Amino acid sequence: MINLKNDYCYIAHPLILEKLNQNREYTYNGYGFDEYTTKAVNLIKETFKCRKANVYFLPGGTITNKIAIAHSLKPYEAVICVDSGHINTHETGAIEQTGHKILVVKNHNGKVWGSDVEELILKHTDEHMVKPKMLYISNPTEYGTIYTLEEIKKLHALCEKYDLYFYIDGARLATALTASTNDIKAQDLAKYVDIFYIGGTKNGLMMGEALVIVNEKLKAEFRYSLKHFGGLFAKGFLCGIQFITLFENNLFFQIGTYQNQLAAQLTEGLKKLNVQFLMPTETNQIFVTLDNDIIKKLQKNIMFEIWEEGKTSSTIRLVVHYNLKPAQIEEVIQILKQYLEEANVKNREL
Amino acid sequence: MINLKNDYCYIAHPLILEKLNQNREYTYNGYGFDEYTTKAVNLIKETFKCRKANVYFLPGGTITNKIAIAHSLKPYEAVICVDSGHINTHETGAIEQTGHKILVVKNHNGKVWGSDVEELILKHTDEHMVKPKMLYISNPTEYGTIYTLEEIKKLHALCEKYDLYFYIDGARLATALTASTNDIKAQDLAKYVDIFYIGGTKNGLMMGEALVIVNEKLKAEFRYSLKHFGGLFAKGFLCGIQFITLFENNLFFQIGTYQNQLAAQLTEGLKKLNVQFLMPTETNQIFVTLDNDIIKKLQKNIMFEIWEEGKTSSTIRLVVHYNLKPAQIEEVIQILKQYLEEANVKNREL
Amino acid sequence: MINLKNDYCYIAHPLILEKLNQNREYTYNGYGFDEYTTKAVNLIKETFKCRKANVYFLPGGTITNKIAIAHSLKPYEAVICVDSGHINTHETGAIEQTGHKILVVKNHNGKVWGSDVEELILKHTDEHMVKPKMLYISNPTEYGTIYTLEEIKKLHALCEKYDLYFYIDGARLATALTASTNDIKAQDLAKYVDIFYIGGTKNGLMMGEALVIVNEKLKAEFRYSLKHFGGLFAKGFLCGIQFITLFENNLFFQIGTYQNQLAAQLTEGLKKLNVQFLMPTETNQIFVTLDNDIIKKLQKNIMFEIWEEGKTSSTIRLVVHYNLKPAQIEEVIQILKQYLEEANVKNREL
Amino acid sequence: MINLKNDYCYIAHPLILEKLNQNREYTYNGYGFDEYTTKAVNLIKETFKCRKANVYFLPGGTITNKIAIAHSLKPYEAVICVDSGHINTHETGAIEQTGHKILVVKNHNGKVWGSDVEELILKHTDEHMVKPKMLYISNPTEYGTIYTLEEIKKLHALCEKYDLYFYIDGARLATALTASTNDIKAQDLAKYVDIFYIGGTKNGLMMGEALVIVNEKLKAEFRYSLKHFGGLFAKGFLCGIQFITLFENNLFFQIGTYQNQLAAQLTEGLKKLNVQFLMPTETNQIFVTLDNDIIKKLQKNIMFEIWEEGKTSSTIRLVVHYNLKPAQIEEVIQILKQYLEEANVKNREL
Repeated sequence: MINLKNDYCYIAHPLILEKLNQNREYTYNGYGFDEYTTKAVNLIKETFKCRKANVYFLPGGTITNKIAIAHSLKPYEAVICVDSGHINTHETGAIEQTGHKILVVKNHNGKVWGSDVEELILKHTDEHMVKPKMLYISNPTEYGTIYTLEEIKKLHALCEKYDLYFYIDGARLATALTASTNDIKAQDLAKYVDIFYIGGTKNGLMMGEALVIVNEKLKAEFRYSLKHFGGLFAKGFLCGIQFITLFENNLFFQIGTYQNQLAAQLTEGLKKLNVQFLMPTETNQIFVTLDNDIIKKLQKNIMFEIWEEGKTSSTIRLVVHYNLKPAQIEEVIQILKQYLEEANVKNREL
Repeated sequence: MINLKNDYCYIAHPLILEKLNQNREYTYNGYGFDEYTTKAVNLIKETFKCRKANVYFLPGGTITNKIAIAHSLKPYEAVICVDSGHINTHETGAIEQTGHKILVVKNHNGKVWGSDVEELILKHTDEHMVKPKMLYISNPTEYGTIYTLEEIKKLHALCEKYDLYFYIDGARLATALTASTNDIKAQDLAKYVDIFYIGGTKNGLMMGEALVIVNEKLKAEFRYSLKHFGGLFAKGFLCGIQFITLFENNLFFQIGTYQNQLAAQLTEGLKKLNVQFLMPTETNQIFVTLDNDIIKKLQKNIMFEIWEEGKTSSTIRLVVHYNLKPAQIEEVIQILKQYLEEANVKNREL
Repeated sequence: MINLKNDYCYIAHPLILEKLNQNREYTYNGYGFDEYTTKAVNLIKETFKCRKANVYFLPGGTITNKIAIAHSLKPYEAVICVDSGHINTHETGAIEQTGHKILVVKNHNGKVWGSDVEELILKHTDEHMVKPKMLYISNPTEYGTIYTLEEIKKLHALCEKYDLYFYIDGARLATALTASTNDIKAQDLAKYVDIFYIGGTKNGLMMGEALVIVNEKLKAEFRYSLKHFGGLFAKGFLCGIQFITLFENNLFFQIGTYQNQLAAQLTEGLKKLNVQFLMPTETNQIFVTLDNDIIKKLQKNIMFEIWEEGKTSSTIRLVVHYNLKPAQIEEVIQILKQYLEEANVKNREL
Repeated sequence: MINLKNDYCYIAHPLILEKLNQNREYTYNGYGFDEYTTKAVNLIKETFKCRKANVYFLPGGTITNKIAIAHSLKPYEAVICVDSGHINTHETGAIEQTGHKILVVKNHNGKVWGSDVEELILKHTDEHMVKPKMLYISNPTEYGTIYTLEEIKKLHALCEKYDLYFYIDGARLATALTASTNDIKAQDLAKYVDIFYIGGTKNGLMMGEALVIVNEKLKAEFRYSLKHFGGLFAKGFLCGIQFITLFENNLFFQIGTYQNQLAAQLTEGLKKLNVQFLMPTETNQIFVTLDNDIIKKLQKNIMFEIWEEGKTSSTIRLVVHYNLKPAQIEEVIQILKQYLEEANVKNREL
C-alpha cells in the first residue's frame, strides 16, 4: 500500500529523530524557557526577516488557530474565512468554542477574494451584528492552491483599510514558498501579515507549529492565552530542537521543494492519462475526479481520501509527502494507467 | 412621524398596563414561583394543547434563543439556520458565545428547504466537523413569510430522520397563526416541534417571551440553564400577569389579526401604486423597493428601516403594529402616492 | 402573610406605573436610542457627578454583572470577590460561563479586606495562573453591611497599585447611600470606581439596572458586548422612563431611606426581644438566629428565607421593602414576641 | 547543575526513542486510527483490568483535564477540587474557559476529605447555584502525597451517593502506584472511578497522556469533544508507539519505582541533615523548608522551584526523575550538608 492520504502519516524526518537522540542525555527548562527554543526562535526571525516578532511553538494546527484567533479578538469580534477554510469546516467548531463567529465568504479555487470580503464588511454596520476584525486565509489553501504576492498585498491593504488583523494559517507553508508558481518570499510574510504560523507537523517534524506574532498589539500576555486555551507545551524544548533542525540547514525548504517535485511528477503522469483535475496542482495536494469503479480498484493499492463523493464518479485527494520516493509515484501512475486501460477495454466491449 | 420601524416601539397594550396596575398592591414569590406564572403557564398549555410541556418566561428574544439552543446542545453540536436567520445575522454572535457553531443554508423567501438541510447533514460525517443537532426556523421568517403545515410536517419528518431537535423562534408567532394564508393551528406546534417560543414583546406585552419545551429530553434542569446563561427573571410574576392577560381573552390572536389587517391594508394600497415588492406580504412586515429619492422624502414623514441599500434604489421594511390606526396606514399610502406622482411629473418633464 | 422574603416581590412603585401609563400612546426608538433614555442617562450623570461616564440600562442584576465583567476582562483575566459574593455563590456560574475565573477571598461581615486581596495578587505571579484584573464588591454586601468612604478609598488605591478595575455591584445601592452609618456620597462613586451599577429592580422599578462606565478603557464598543452576551433590551425606553421617574424627584433616595427606616424599626423591635443578630443591621436586610421551633411558627405568618440551617437553631433573613407599612413591621415584632414568650413559658414549665 | 525542577525536563526514556527510530520507515493512519494505537489501548485495558473502557491519547495534562471535564459536564455543572488542586491553581482558568465553575474545598496534605465535599454539596440546593457533578482529585496530589485504597473507596461511595462523576488526574500515577506506602492496585482504579488519566509526559514518554473512560455515560462522541476543545492529535500513532513501549515490558512501573527509590534516597539523606519537611515524602516530590541563605547558595548547583517564599526561610520543591543517577542524589545531599555546616559555623561564630 502506498500512503497518499495525508502529509502527516510518518514519525519524522531522519534528521529530526537524529537530533532528538543526540540531545537525549540533557535536561531542559520547561515551557519554552530553554536555550534551544531561544535559538529556534532566532533562526525563524532571521529566515522570515522579522526581528521584532514574537515566536511561540504549539503542538498542533487546530490549537494554534484556536489560540491565535481567540487571543486576538474581543468577544463580539469575528474572523472572516472562505467557506472551504479549515477553521470553518474541519475543526469541529473549535473557534466557536472560544465564543467567536466565523463569517464566511465563497472560495475561488480555495482562495478569498477581497471584493467578497469588502461586501461582507459593509453589511456589518452596527452592534446587532458581530464586528469583523480578522481575515483568515491559509497558504496553500485547502485545495493546495497558493496566493501571489500581489494578492497578499491587496488583502493586506484591505485589512489596513478596514482595521482587520490579517492571519495566515501556514500548516503547509513550506510547499507554498517553494512552489514553482510562487512569487512570495519568506521575508514578505511579516511585511504584510499581522500573525501567521509556520507548519512543522506536515513538513518533516514529529510535531510542532511556530506561531509568529508581528503586530505589536497582539503580543501582550500571549503566554497567558497559550495556557488558558490549552496550548502551552510542557516540553517546549522538543519543538525548539526540532525547529532548529528545520531552519539550520534549510531543511524546511528542502522538504517543501521535494514534496512539490513529487507532486509535479504525479501531476505530469496523471495528465498523460487524461485524468480530470478539480484544481490546478500548485503544491503537494492533487485533486482528481475518477469513475467510482476505478476508485474502488485503486483503494486496494493506494490509500487516499475521497474528497467529494458522486454517484458515478468522485473527486479524490492525493497528498505526497517527504518519505515517498519517485519510484513510488511512478508506481501509482502505472497502477492507475492499468485500471484505466482495463476500463477502456471493457467499455469498448460493451 | 408615523413609526413603521418595528413592532416593539410602544410600551404595552392598554389591557396589559391595566392588569399590572390592578395587581400593584400585592407581593409575589420571585423567579416564577408565583400563582400568576402558574396560571399563565396553564393557559398556554391549553391554548397550544401541550399539557405535558414545560413553559418558561424570559425577558427577550435573543436571550431566549441563546438559552434554548445552548441548553439543548452538547458543546460540539451545531444548529442549522438559513443565512437570513435572526440568530445568524442579528444577534452579534450570541449563539457562538455559548460555543456552538451555526451551520448555514440558503434561504428561499426567508424559509429553509429540507433538501438543503439534508445535503448539509450528509456532508457532516465525522468528528472533524461539528455535529448538526438542531434545526432553527422562525415563523414568520425574517421576511415576514410563513410556513405551511405541510412544510412543517416535512421538516419535522426530516428532523426525526436525522435525530435533530426542531426549534421554532416565534417572536412574531401571533401574526403567523392569524395570517390569511396560514393553515397551522396553535395545537399543531407541539405536535411537530421539540421546543418553540411564543413572542410577547412584539405582540402587545411590555416584555416577555414564553418558551415551550415539548421534548422530554430537553426538560431536565432547564432552570439551571436559565440562570447560568443570564435569563432568569427575578420578577417572573410580571410575565405571569402579562401572559394571563394575553391568553385569557384571546388578546394574543386579536393583536396578531389586527396587525395582519393593517398590513393587508397597506399592501393593497402599495400595490395600487405599482410599487415593487421584495416578498409577498403574509404577516406584518412589508418589503418594498423604491427609488432612493423617494425614500429620502419618505423619511421626513415616516420612520422605517432601510433593509438593503442600493445605488439608485433600495429596499425598505415597513412594519405595522397594534397601536397604529387604519387612518395612519391610509396616510402612509397617500404620502407615498404624492411623492411618486411628483417624481413622475419630474421624469416626464425631463 | 407578610412578605419579608426579598425586596423585589412587588410590581413597581405607583409613580413608576403612573409614568408608564402616561406615556402609553407614544412610540419610541428601540434599543435605548430614544429621548427618554437620553434624559435618564443625563439625570444619572448629574446625580452621580460623572459627566463623562457612559450609562447603559440592563434588565437585571445577573446579566449586568455578567456583561460588566466579561466586557472588561481578557479571556485569561480573573475577578476577585469575597466567598459570600453574589457572583460567586448565587449566579449559577454565570461569570464562568463567559470563561473567567472568580478568585475568592474570605469575607469579613460580607466585606473584602484589602490585605487579603493583596496577598492573593502576590501569589499570582506568572502565566500558569490566571491574571487578577478586577475587584468586585457589592455595596451593600450580601449581608446588608456597607463600606465606609475610607474603605472605598483604600480599595481604590489598591486597585491603582495593582492595575485592577474596581467594580461595584449596586443592586441595593440606594439603601447603602441612605444608610444612617453611611458616609459615601453619590458623587464619590465615580471618583474611586471604574464601573458600577445602580440597582432599580430592588428599589421601586418594575425592572432595570443602570450600569455606569467611568473608566475610558472600558467604554469602547460596550453595546456590542450588550448584545453578544444577551443583555440588550429591545424596549430600552421602558428603562429610560422608569429611571427618569427615579431620579427626577429624588425617588431613588426616598425609597432607600424609607426601606432603611423600616429596617431600623424592625431591628429596634428585635433587639428588645433579645434576639441574636448575625450581623449589625445597616441597610434593609436583617439576619437573626432563632430556634427552629420559633422559625417554624413564624413561617405561618411571615415569608422569609432561611439563610443558614442548623440542627436546633437557624439564621433567617428578613428583607424590608418600600411597599411595607410601619404597622406591618410592628405586627412582625408582635408575632415574634408572642412566639418567644410562649417558648419561654414552655421552657420554664420543663 | 543538577536539575530537580520537575520530572518533564528530558526528551524521553532511551527505549522510547529507540522504538520511534525503529518505526521511522512506516506510514500510519492519522488521528489514532492506526494499529499501534489499538495495541497500546489494549495493553492499557489489560494492565488496568478495564476491558470495556474507552482509552484516548492526548498530548498534555492541562488539555486532558480540560476535555475530560468539559466533555462530562452540562454547562451549569461544576467540578469539586481542593484549593491546591492543579486545575484550580495552575491551569490559568483552562477549566473556566469551557464555562464550568470549580468548587473549592480545603486540602489536607494535598488530599480531599469526603466530609468537606459533603458539606459543600449540601449547600448547593437550587438553580441559583451551580450543580456539583464531578469530584476531581489527583493521585499523587500536588504535594506528592497519595490516597489509600480505603480513601478511594469512600470517595467513590460519596460520589455514588450524590451522583457525582469521580475523576482522577494521574499525571504522576506511576509513582503513586509504585510508592512504598501505596495499597492501590492498577486494577482498582476502573472499579472506583468514572474517568482517569495515566500520565506519560512525567513518566518517561516524550509526550502523551492516556485518558480512560470507564463510565458508559461519558463515552458517547468523545472524539468530537477531543477535536472541539483542541486536543485531537494528528499523529496519534506517536502516542500509540510510546504507550506500547511503556506497557509492553512494565516500563511504566519500573520508571515509577526508580523515581520513588531516588526520592527515598534523597529523603533519607535530608532527614539525616535534620531538614524540616513540609509533607511526608510518598512519591517523587520532596518539600523542605530551608533558610533563604542556604537556598540562595543551593541555586548555584541545583535547579529547583521555590514553592512558598518566606522572609527568612522558604519551602522548596525537589523533584526527582528517571534520568537522574543515585550518585547525583548523593551529590545533592553532600552539597546541602556542606552549606548547612558552613552556616552552623557562622552562627556559632556570631
